[in-house]
Amino acid sequence: MSGKRTRLTPDQRRAQLVDIGLEMLADRSLDELSTDEVARRAGISRGLLFHYFDSKRDFYRAVVEAECRRFVAAAEPDPSLPPVEWLRSFIAGFVTYVLEHRQVYLALVRGAAGSHPAVADIVGETRERVAQRVADGQRRLGMPDSPRLGLAARAWMAFVEEAVTGWPVDEPGAREELAAFLESSFVSLLGMLDRPSALRSG
Amino acid sequence: MSGKRTRLTPDQRRAQLVDIGLEMLADRSLDELSTDEVARRAGISRGLLFHYFDSKRDFYRAVVEAECRRFVAAAEPDPSLPPVEWLRSFIAGFVTYVLEHRQVYLALVRGAAGSHPAVADIVGETRERVAQRVADGQRRLGMPDSPRLGLAARAWMAFVEEAVTGWPVDEPGAREELAAFLESSFVSLLGMLDRPSALRSG
Repeated sequence: MSGKRTRLTPDQRRAQLVDIGLEMLADRSLDELSTDEVARRAGISRGLLFHYFDSKRDFYRAVVEAECRRFVAAAEPDPSLPPVEWLRSFIAGFVTYVLEHRQVYLALVRGAAGSHPAVADIVGETRERVAQRVADGQRRLGMPDSPRLGLAARAWMAFVEEAVTGWPVDEPGAREELAAFLESSFVSLLGMLDRPSALRSG
Repeated sequence: MSGKRTRLTPDQRRAQLVDIGLEMLADRSLDELSTDEVARRAGISRGLLFHYFDSKRDFYRAVVEAECRRFVAAAEPDPSLPPVEWLRSFIAGFVTYVLEHRQVYLALVRGAAGSHPAVADIVGETRERVAQRVADGQRRLGMPDSPRLGLAARAWMAFVEEAVTGWPVDEPGAREELAAFLESSFVSLLGMLDRPSALRSG
């Protein structure tokens, strides 16, 4: 076993360890991510792992940064698309990412408050970047601006996360139905900012 | 110090320890909730705490159950109210609870996936009970039924949680504005289930 060590450059080794961490996060929380186990899977000693990362916290942060980069990249539409196609591409990227990284997403990205204290700032910045993209989509569609737009964008993201993680995506037609539901929710939620309540008593 | 022990019945003692746990949760996560500290604050030994609770997990569950009962009770309108007033009372109760128990709510109730494994079932059942109430409100308002209603209700709750925790509630008029925003979102999000996308390409 110990003879199986592979010669890697420091950058390759760091990347390998982060990849192992990302893979392991698919079925456990950050707190359950054992650096002993990561080192074992990489065929190196725990001591050597801490040659590449200053601390457990430093390793956790590298893993979460890598995951957050994936998320941001997945939900980045071609900026030259017309508004509606841009929005559809954004929603499709967001949905696909959440479906394909469901466990990691639930453990890490969803809800800045639920995330691990060691990585809360990374997760928070990531959510903020994606929320700014939601606001960008709103402007592209020519919808009314509002001081509450950023907040509404984050609330819409929480709505999307919950809908995507619960939707029966394996049923026939369910993905198309989900996409239509999210597009409509985007228009109706972000289009009604600053309007009085639609409800009348009685 | 040790002479300060108070004579309490077993039920009173359990309730006292749970109350201390709830209070401490206001500024820390469940993992950071030390039973040593709880016992110290109650003026009893750690050993005696484990006379009342089988394990740390058992204590955590008792604390979270108590908090979830508070949440469910806060968002329970008088069933005899007319539909719109019922919905307003439900939203007001939900908003007030989240604002007044902000830290605990963020740490515990929000996002079943983000919650501690030892209490995920309790949190999940609580969210389900509140989601059923959302669906109840939808029926009271005579809005169209849909096989996706339960899911949409949970997604709307995630939306509300994010909006409430981010809204600048201390600004003048902000609470009223928030209530109107949430009422409108209830109608627009839950009223458009099973409708085709509102967007047209071009």
